Amino acid sequence: MSDLLWQKGGIAVDAKIMAFLAGDDVLLDREFFLHDIAASAAHVDGLANIGIVTRDDAAAIRRELDALATDFRSGDFVLDERFEDGHSAIEARLVERLGDAGKRVHTGRSRNDQILVATRLWLRERLDAVADACRRTAAVCLDRAASESLPMPGYTHIQRAVVSSTALWFAGFAESFIDNLTLVRATRELVDANPLGTAAGYGVNLPLDREHTTQALGFGRMQINPIYAQLSRGKFEMAAIDALAGAVLDLRRLAWDLSLFTSGEFGFVTLAPQYTTGSSIMPNKRNPDVVELMRASYASVAGARTEIEQLLSLPSGYQRDLQLSKGSIFHAFRHGLAALELLPDLLASMAWNAQRMRDAIEPAMYATDVAVEAAVAGIPFRDAYRAAADGAAAAGQGRTPEASLAARVSPGASGDLRLDVLRQRLQRATQA
Amino acid sequence: MSDLLWQKGGIAVDAKIMAFLAGDDVLLDREFFLHDIAASAAHVDGLANIGIVTRDDAAAIRRELDALATDFRSGDFVLDERFEDGHSAIEARLVERLGDAGKRVHTGRSRNDQILVATRLWLRERLDAVADACRRTAAVCLDRAASESLPMPGYTHIQRAVVSSTALWFAGFAESFIDNLTLVRATRELVDANPLGTAAGYGVNLPLDREHTTQALGFGRMQINPIYAQLSRGKFEMAAIDALAGAVLDLRRLAWDLSLFTSGEFGFVTLAPQYTTGSSIMPNKRNPDVVELMRASYASVAGARTEIEQLLSLPSGYQRDLQLSKGSIFHAFRHGLAALELLPDLLASMAWNAQRMRDAIEPAMYATDVAVEAAVAGIPFRDAYRAAADGAAAAGQGRTPEASLAARVSPGASGDLRLDVLRQRLQRATQA
Amino acid sequence: MSDLLWQKGGIAVDAKIMAFLAGDDVLLDREFFLHDIAASAAHVDGLANIGIVTRDDAAAIRRELDALATDFRSGDFVLDERFEDGHSAIEARLVERLGDAGKRVHTGRSRNDQILVATRLWLRERLDAVADACRRTAAVCLDRAASESLPMPGYTHIQRAVVSSTALWFAGFAESFIDNLTLVRATRELVDANPLGTAAGYGVNLPLDREHTTQALGFGRMQINPIYAQLSRGKFEMAAIDALAGAVLDLRRLAWDLSLFTSGEFGFVTLAPQYTTGSSIMPNKRNPDVVELMRASYASVAGARTEIEQLLSLPSGYQRDLQLSKGSIFHAFRHGLAALELLPDLLASMAWNAQRMRDAIEPAMYATDVAVEAAVAGIPFRDAYRAAADGAAAAGQGRTPEASLAARVSPGASGDLRLDVLRQRLQRATQA
Amino acid sequence: MSDLLWQKGGIAVDAKIMAFLAGDDVLLDREFFLHDIAASAAHVDGLANIGIVTRDDAAAIRRELDALATDFRSGDFVLDERFEDGHSAIEARLVERLGDAGKRVHTGRSRNDQILVATRLWLRERLDAVADACRRTAAVCLDRAASESLPMPGYTHIQRAVVSSTALWFAGFAESFIDNLTLVRATRELVDANPLGTAAGYGVNLPLDREHTTQALGFGRMQINPIYAQLSRGKFEMAAIDALAGAVLDLRRLAWDLSLFTSGEFGFVTLAPQYTTGSSIMPNKRNPDVVELMRASYASVAGARTEIEQLLSLPSGYQRDLQLSKGSIFHAFRHGLAALELLPDLLASMAWNAQRMRDAIEPAMYATDVAVEAAVAGIPFRDAYRAAADGAAAAGQGRTPEASLAARVSPGASGDLRLDVLRQRLQRATQA
Repeated sequence: MSDLLWQKGGIAVDAKIMAFLAGDDVLLDREFFLHDIAASAAHVDGLANIGIVTRDDAAAIRRELDALATDFRSGDFVLDERFEDGHSAIEARLVERLGDAGKRVHTGRSRNDQILVATRLWLRERLDAVADACRRTAAVCLDRAASESLPMPGYTHIQRAVVSSTALWFAGFAESFIDNLTLVRATRELVDANPLGTAAGYGVNLPLDREHTTQALGFGRMQINPIYAQLSRGKFEMAAIDALAGAVLDLRRLAWDLSLFTSGEFGFVTLAPQYTTGSSIMPNKRNPDVVELMRASYASVAGARTEIEQLLSLPSGYQRDLQLSKGSIFHAFRHGLAALELLPDLLASMAWNAQRMRDAIEPAMYATDVAVEAAVAGIPFRDAYRAAADGAAAAGQGRTPEASLAARVSPGASGDLRLDVLRQRLQRATQA
Repeated sequence: MSDLLWQKGGIAVDAKIMAFLAGDDVLLDREFFLHDIAASAAHVDGLANIGIVTRDDAAAIRRELDALATDFRSGDFVLDERFEDGHSAIEARLVERLGDAGKRVHTGRSRNDQILVATRLWLRERLDAVADACRRTAAVCLDRAASESLPMPGYTHIQRAVVSSTALWFAGFAESFIDNLTLVRATRELVDANPLGTAAGYGVNLPLDREHTTQALGFGRMQINPIYAQLSRGKFEMAAIDALAGAVLDLRRLAWDLSLFTSGEFGFVTLAPQYTTGSSIMPNKRNPDVVELMRASYASVAGARTEIEQLLSLPSGYQRDLQLSKGSIFHAFRHGLAALELLPDLLASMAWNAQRMRDAIEPAMYATDVAVEAAVAGIPFRDAYRAAADGAAAAGQGRTPEASLAARVSPGASGDLRLDVLRQRLQRATQA
Repeated sequence: MSDLLWQKGGIAVDAKIMAFLAGDDVLLDREFFLHDIAASAAHVDGLANIGIVTRDDAAAIRRELDALATDFRSGDFVLDERFEDGHSAIEARLVERLGDAGKRVHTGRSRNDQILVATRLWLRERLDAVADACRRTAAVCLDRAASESLPMPGYTHIQRAVVSSTALWFAGFAESFIDNLTLVRATRELVDANPLGTAAGYGVNLPLDREHTTQALGFGRMQINPIYAQLSRGKFEMAAIDALAGAVLDLRRLAWDLSLFTSGEFGFVTLAPQYTTGSSIMPNKRNPDVVELMRASYASVAGARTEIEQLLSLPSGYQRDLQLSKGSIFHAFRHGLAALELLPDLLASMAWNAQRMRDAIEPAMYATDVAVEAAVAGIPFRDAYRAAADGAAAAGQGRTPEASLAARVSPGASGDLRLDVLRQRLQRATQA
Repeated sequence: MSDLLWQKGGIAVDAKIMAFLAGDDVLLDREFFLHDIAASAAHVDGLANIGIVTRDDAAAIRRELDALATDFRSGDFVLDERFEDGHSAIEARLVERLGDAGKRVHTGRSRNDQILVATRLWLRERLDAVADACRRTAAVCLDRAASESLPMPGYTHIQRAVVSSTALWFAGFAESFIDNLTLVRATRELVDANPLGTAAGYGVNLPLDREHTTQALGFGRMQINPIYAQLSRGKFEMAAIDALAGAVLDLRRLAWDLSLFTSGEFGFVTLAPQYTTGSSIMPNKRNPDVVELMRASYASVAGARTEIEQLLSLPSGYQRDLQLSKGSIFHAFRHGLAALELLPDLLASMAWNAQRMRDAIEPAMYATDVAVEAAVAGIPFRDAYRAAADGAAAAGQGRTPEASLAARVSPGASGDLRLDVLRQRLQRATQA
């Protein structure tokens, strides 16, 4: 570990304690390093605007920051345990290359607002990726709903209930991911607030140019109050995870459907082969591992959320507990986002087995249709229901799934899918 | 339990099993009963629009529904274990009073969309209440930040760090609750979608007038796809809890502050006496129980969220597991909303102890100011920092908290609180 | 609400605040009331042993406590909002009936150790019930494993993998619930510690006869340290929920199996009719609602656990936050225990559909057997595996499930179930 | 990635999908690699016992396994992305070095029981480390309770309540960690069951010598049923985390105490300097970061538990979802165990500030003593309580903390700490 910039002398250092303090902080900081560099550049320009560093020094610092970013991307600079964290690594590099100018870069800021701003830029980027995965998922679902509609059983309680269709199924997930997209974008707006310039949570005795950094980093607004900036640590992370979790929650249900649909018993869906794997002991198997890991990815998102949530029973003001939230968001997005990003192609490439689905449709599944028809004919529904219940199987004889689906004309149902409305909503949600 | 409307005959009934199935469902349904009645009225009008019930029958049903609502509110009608659930209670009453007309009310709908729509109306109402509590909290905080600013220690790591002020503290929570308000309203928009008319998740063979029910119940949009309507059960509940939790999370941190500030060691705050209670064994005590229960209320919200989250590892389509989500949202809002609603008055009535706070400000807390001043004077910050660290206590001699606060001119800090900007944001968030 | 015993005068009471403080505490205390009475009796005897109350007064108090318990059980005494909580109700009754003697009952104790001891007695009782449900479940599973073994597919990834049997399935859950029983009993031992006599967490200036109360209430040991007694509030509750959750977790997986096995696609199991219900719109349906609610009951247990866990980020010493833990344990055990208690009968009464299971066994499912046979014959397993993979379906032609099961002689497998060992373990776990 | 041992040919491989499937599995397998090797050795001996491999081959395989372990420990063999996972790495190495003999090592086992047994050995080792940390913590606490007792305020509601002592505080945590130790050991017994030889969850057609592997790997018992072996995946991991969490939960409360006690306001405790760090912006600060990260470590344990818990809503039989549980246990123990292991030294080295604690004791804190004395003198406690409440401050005048502590003779309180009983319990718990 490097000589600590903020360590006072004369204290015996215990390796086990230092390791506990460090955790894998510096490795996690790789995630945020480019964002930290970008924010450092904006901060230095702000300092130049108020005369704390000269224009020349500011330009030199920017050059070095750019060079550091380039070196980091290329692997010429490796952020590792030599440094306490990414923040010290940046300052150390600037001091090494620029001497006193480098020592000025930390003027008016704290590691507290430094990590806040880097994390926020990272979250914004990740939420954009989540939004994009939601958008693409909804688009694929709408396309498949529009291009083909095969009859399949509709289930409640995993029991065959009424006739449904592949188009209805795809349209359902389309609408679901449109809503997810909307919520992700609302959350993106929440976190799009600039904390840089709030220092350790109480501001500083300098007229920092926070308008400049807000604009330079593309933030939608300034996070004004320094105490609130600290209060939002963990809170915004949780909100971002909530938005991610909303989408992954639907993915979990979708993956459950596919897990059943690809079983021998259902046999409704065949996945493209790249989504399945073999077994180490059973030579006969092809398993839908990707679908299972997609389903499981919710667990990682939920675990990460719990980790942050448990941290946040604290008074106001920064406390070291919050350091752990870096690992949490990384864990959540690594698993959740990876799963979401695989979804559109998996959905686009999966194949329905029309015959197996048709075979699973039984005459009794028309009983609800029959009861409603009787109700239309004037028999009070409750009486019609009882009559149909008594002769459920007989009632459905001679009916076809296609006719049943066509007659289902309540808005949104198979006879009136309203894909156009969904398409408009997707477009609006994308542009919002 | 009443004769079950959808029970087929000839099956032995086991009391223990029936109790397990029922849970406290019918008691919970009291919460949703008026909403269920309102949605039933809209549904019947919709049925009249498509000719399934006559206009006269529809009018009669509405009259009975209104009467039932009146009886329920007055206590003349008690929803209890005589009924399987609220839905059956409504239908039973209509059949009892109106005969065949009553038996028509369930045409084209299922208990599935019936509970969905009732829950949604309930959630919308609760989210409005949460939004209002956030708004009132932010307003009180802004008022107190504007009217008075007393110096107090600012903490990091629960260690005295720099000079802060009561105005900065209040403004921090103001901004926090403005953001919470915004997020609550975004979530309100998400759940403001009409599921009525999606039946058991596959629509029906009737051209239900869903535009009418959407408009009559004041929904912002129709939830189009019936499969999605079912997928959103639990999902929208979780989103609503997330929004609530965001606000209660900040309340938890605020309550932590007050828990410390009211301790003998800090002694910064005196609560109005109605917020404290005595001890059963220690006659000398006045305890801040309200603050502690406010802090604890987050736990109830989190527990409720976990309960729903754990339910939702399911394939698509209704499954009975989801029944438990009714209790979850009730639990979450009962505790979380009650705590939020007490907050504005508690904040408005609490008193700062100026002298205790001033006494807690030590000379060393000016060291950051000193280091920044040296940086302004040209000494590189890192060197200035090291110099100040060596003589922290000496550095602050002769300084006053007031001067330190006034010099803290970074935007948002004590010298530039920007309450006007926060006020504008609160207004926008309220109107949004 | 009654005149509060520990309220000092002159403080304006706010109804909303009082309601928030009370929660549904007094209703929850109904759960613990008889235990509170029992512990009060032991406490009074202890006080008599050290001369704080006379033997006559102690006898009188015991008589009144017994009468109160009788009245409570019969419904002649109702614990409701007239009282602040169950503790005050007991004291109020004793004072009303016995005057000064009643006023002595609270000597040397606090509501803190009073609720601790009542809760602990309650938890001990509930854990005994959980243990019994585990024992009965294991016994039913062992009986069914011993009495019948039908071939069925064994699944991995919900894909047909190899031949399995109903006996193997039942024996698996038998062993599972034997382990659960063991863990429940270990946890019962943990919570079986007497906190009565630790007062508000710092003991009292009286030589309380804690040996007596420990023995009188049947505790396994005294919880010695008063600070630890307070630290264990919530902690022991969580441990009890963990033990319950272990069993319900297995129930959730078992319920998942049954949910699939009762579907039309699998069709392996028929539940006794009392475990299924009808649909409000689809007259053709019989749904396994009980199985679904069993599966869902884990969610309630998990939610309750989260609620307590979130409370416990506190310094030592009693804090009002902990009040909420009463509701949590009640919620967890109400749902979790009810589900467990239904399990033995459900398992005893469910019927396997031998033909459907046999039809689902495909020739390729013998491929693993073939590969292992080849390995026995000398071909390295990895080569045998590859060969079998290429001709999986052909390999299994002509084989029967029965022969495959009989040949599966690895200890624990179908050819060597070792039910006798499991039976012995169950017996030991029951007696432990 | 290596040529996959169980991959069938002809399937296009998608890099993004492969990365998703792999996760960081192979890196995590480093944790379990030595245990996997040990279990592989036992398995091969078992195969030799039943004649599947020759004694010579078995000896050769053992030699290579030993060499691999040595190379892994020395860094000469690196387990990295060249391999699909640790299991394939072992087999690949054996095949490379030994040809056909190596290809026999996987006979009669599956990756399923292979990871189960490796994980279990790992968990057993970790639980032993947790037990040891609990034991050492309890021992330090007992030593400090015995060697010194300084008066300090006892708190309820973070309000000064009655006189307490440092000995009472240490003894409280001693008893707490003795209980934790007991529970950890009970859980260690639960997980100490051998799953090796259950293959993919249905056993194999070989008389595997499971008695041998059970004994060779030092397991307390054989996990008999193969279906249960699979059911216990995740379940045992959760149980182990529960046991860990019990101890870390107490650590969280202890850390909260220290966080307050080291604040300027309390000032009761000074930590040894190696447990504190400086600030990047505030040169005057020494922060108790270690204590805060200890407190926070519970969050990581809780997050890991949630992750597994969310995975386990599955039918029986292996499913790929369970792969994620490897990362969960690693995360939980890495943070939780590290924190626990630092605790004994931190407690042994922390210093009490006697004067600050004495200054915080106010006359009103004797009011409970006064009320109890009056009760002893014959005044009914409730009346004595009211009298003391009216004159709380006056009542305590002239009393000393030492006298108050000495008079607190209820068993376990300051006047009768019963450290000898706790010492005996610790000894029994250690030997159990």
